[in-house]
Amino acid sequence: MQAHVEGDTVQVGHAGREQFYDARGYGHPVDGELHLSRVEAAHLLFRGDLDAVEGMGFREFFEAEGGLASRFLVYKDLRDRGFYLTPARDGWADDADGIDFVVYPRGKGPWDDAVEYRVRVVAERETVPAADLGDVVLAVVDEESELTYLETSVPEVSGTATDHTEHGIEAALLDDRVAVWEPPEWLYAQGFYGQPLDDDRTAIQLSLVEAAYLAEQGVLSFPGGREAVLELGRETEGDRFDRRLTVYTALRARGIVPKTGFKFGADFRTYADVSSVDDLGHSERLVRVLPDGHTFAPRDLSLDVRLAHGVRKEMVFALTDGTSHGSDVDPNGEVAWLSVQRLTP
Amino acid sequence: MQAHVEGDTVQVGHAGREQFYDARGYGHPVDGELHLSRVEAAHLLFRGDLDAVEGMGFREFFEAEGGLASRFLVYKDLRDRGFYLTPARDGWADDADGIDFVVYPRGKGPWDDAVEYRVRVVAERETVPAADLGDVVLAVVDEESELTYLETSVPEVSGTATDHTEHGIEAALLDDRVAVWEPPEWLYAQGFYGQPLDDDRTAIQLSLVEAAYLAEQGVLSFPGGREAVLELGRETEGDRFDRRLTVYTALRARGIVPKTGFKFGADFRTYADVSSVDDLGHSERLVRVLPDGHTFAPRDLSLDVRLAHGVRKEMVFALTDGTSHGSDVDPNGEVAWLSVQRLTP
Repeated sequence: MQAHVEGDTVQVGHAGREQFYDARGYGHPVDGELHLSRVEAAHLLFRGDLDAVEGMGFREFFEAEGGLASRFLVYKDLRDRGFYLTPARDGWADDADGIDFVVYPRGKGPWDDAVEYRVRVVAERETVPAADLGDVVLAVVDEESELTYLETSVPEVSGTATDHTEHGIEAALLDDRVAVWEPPEWLYAQGFYGQPLDDDRTAIQLSLVEAAYLAEQGVLSFPGGREAVLELGRETEGDRFDRRLTVYTALRARGIVPKTGFKFGADFRTYADVSSVDDLGHSERLVRVLPDGHTFAPRDLSLDVRLAHGVRKEMVFALTDGTSHGSDVDPNGEVAWLSVQRLTP
Repeated sequence: MQAHVEGDTVQVGHAGREQFYDARGYGHPVDGELHLSRVEAAHLLFRGDLDAVEGMGFREFFEAEGGLASRFLVYKDLRDRGFYLTPARDGWADDADGIDFVVYPRGKGPWDDAVEYRVRVVAERETVPAADLGDVVLAVVDEESELTYLETSVPEVSGTATDHTEHGIEAALLDDRVAVWEPPEWLYAQGFYGQPLDDDRTAIQLSLVEAAYLAEQGVLSFPGGREAVLELGRETEGDRFDRRLTVYTALRARGIVPKTGFKFGADFRTYADVSSVDDLGHSERLVRVLPDGHTFAPRDLSLDVRLAHGVRKEMVFALTDGTSHGSDVDPNGEVAWLSVQRLTP
């Protein structure tokens, strides 16, 4: 079968509609004919189902049409996995903005209502604004044309940890950390704040972000006041400190205990259910704090998600401008949460 | 026992020398007395072995002396693990440059010749020049005062892969990758170059770095000549492309096959022993390519090393200025290799 090009569409007649759309879900039917995207046409050429487009075979068509490679590889892979999918063009699929393909559940097609994945294709060296993620599957095509699927969603961030209220516990700044020389027992044992200096838990060391949070809650009292901790934090970490403090505060407000994620290269690992540190489960999530408006490099995403997967945790990104903290933090509005997980379609 | 401060040294008399040096390896004996570093003095105060330094107990001494916290935590941890160690000061320990402590094998001390670890202490937010690494153990103190030990070494980079020589195979540029439509069988099957477009391996896709290497070897021939691939690579990746090509070339010259490390967030994963892709073992290493003069943030190091550990590979950094490639690459001089692994002392 031959096809011809009209603008950005490859068109075949009625027989093509029956053979490609009705039987196998390719393209978008218009007035009894079938409109195909270039990627679909390339796939039909590749399979030998279409003989030529404007006289060109697969190789010629593919070389002539720049910019097809990544999307073709993803299209082909999803077809090979048994899915029907439709290029996300206005009028061809609902809610087509920001994605490349609408993928139907196995056994379903464009004539059904169900959608399994909304897929956005990205080459390894392109970047992706975080704001575009949350309800799409990223299909990353790496430099050797291998595919990695990353499912993005907005996680439910809440836990059952309750906080204690005691005020004016004395604390001291020590270099870039904080010491509480005579801590109440609950501070570490129930609150899971800090780290004992020794097994008998006489003195507790706190990170600057823990200390700043507790200072803002009035729990800790510093010789220089709570401003002294904030200043030291900003001196040590710059703007990142305020963002981390905002996220720390939002997590605590939602009943989640954040601890350092350093060993996993993240900002925090989090525990949704802490009643006592002596009876602590595994942390469920790794949280990386990012500025509002962050743009991901796929390779960095791949690194974080792979690591989280390897340690059986969920990778969550927390995006914030970090301007509010302390009692000003609105846990529902200040931070945008984004979960990213590997997916095998 | 009381001690007094002289410059940057805390001094105790003859009884101190017997009790602390002879019996437990603290300090540096001078004329029958004992000189202690501030960290050692803090540890003796913490343990209650020393009553006071200039009248100060542990807490006062610790708060009065800025900059002790990280080194104290590492010193204490290594002591807790059963090691004797000496602060790396000129005259106190050999080869003291760039490190904080010389650690002796368990059961040995400063009066023996053996050294187990040369330790450099770094707080999570400090940076470490790559050039300072290769023969030291990094002890990273994270914000919650937990310790991560990273052993750095210079790896032996060599393998048994042999290369084929065939010239002038035609290839085409496709967006940011390369297609070889009629590849010889060895290209993928023995050379492990590229990735077949389909199971029957008729066409092979190559990454730009693979293609540029093969073009420089004369194996591939492009319509625009080898310069066309180099240009596209630089357009896509900037300076990074030349660095990656230099490292790719050096690895191939040493009998090692590099493939993309994208799924691990690295530049390459490498195979030291490839005779056929149908009989391929696991890749042994992850390689991250970095510019000469790179400075590590401990958290990035932690992320890479943790991930590599989780997938049972060795994390190797390849540092180069990337100015040479093709036949100009001297595999012994162009790239500095650095291996970093987690260590439990």
